[in-house]
Amino acid sequence: MDVFEVGNLYHVGIAVYNATKTAKLYEKTLGLEIAHDETSSDQGIRAIMLLPKDIKSTAIELLEPIVQDSSISKFLEKKGEGIHHVCYLVDDIRLGIKRLESMGIEMIDHEPREGINNTIVAFAHPKDMNSVLIELAQKI
Amino acid sequence: MDVFEVGNLYHVGIAVYNATKTAKLYEKTLGLEIAHDETSSDQGIRAIMLLPKDIKSTAIELLEPIVQDSSISKFLEKKGEGIHHVCYLVDDIRLGIKRLESMGIEMIDHEPREGINNTIVAFAHPKDMNSVLIELAQKI
Repeated sequence: MDVFEVGNLYHVGIAVYNATKTAKLYEKTLGLEIAHDETSSDQGIRAIMLLPKDIKSTAIELLEPIVQDSSISKFLEKKGEGIHHVCYLVDDIRLGIKRLESMGIEMIDHEPREGINNTIVAFAHPKDMNSVLIELAQKI
Repeated sequence: MDVFEVGNLYHVGIAVYNATKTAKLYEKTLGLEIAHDETSSDQGIRAIMLLPKDIKSTAIELLEPIVQDSSISKFLEKKGEGIHHVCYLVDDIRLGIKRLESMGIEMIDHEPREGINNTIVAFAHPKDMNSVLIELAQKI
């Protein structure tokens, strides 16, 4: 069987009502810096990624919905603001999806789809992972 | 004013009912490896930290309560399993507490207390940080 191991923890996604305002809070209080700022009409979100200054670390990704029926809108309606998911980098996302499915983990995405910041991504269903929403991301 | 900037994102804490069983799931599905396993009767928890194989990355920290009145027990009762907090490493935790308090962020811990894996730690109240529970940790 092919070997599948995730790489770095790429980011922690946080659902927020206002990404601009929250980014300012994290800059001011923790000294984080904006590393990426992208609005995706396909995904219905604006995403601001923040990193500790001068450090190659795991980012936090602030996710603000820009349409009413995005998954982030639904999360905010149901649970309010808060940590939404963790995302691991992988070398081969199709292998990752195959591996998780072979282990009985239900995937939300059976095929990779376009993600933020030049990635293809797939989410595993939290029900099989202790209620943790896990995203796999492959750089393209 | 003294400069305060957090360092690496050290870990993402996940509240679980059974850390041993969940660690096996993460080993099997994502190829993570156990980096640390500690039971703290003071804190009323068992903590298993897992890292991607051969990579210096942000860990996930599985937190299982070993007493009924720990903060993790209360979290599980209220919300069930799931992501509990994010933890940033800092050089000077007393400076961090002072900085956050000066910014109007309410600290749960006004003084550092003993943490897992040779650290002193302090939590900020999620109400001032978009419902995200943020831990600061200084290695000792």
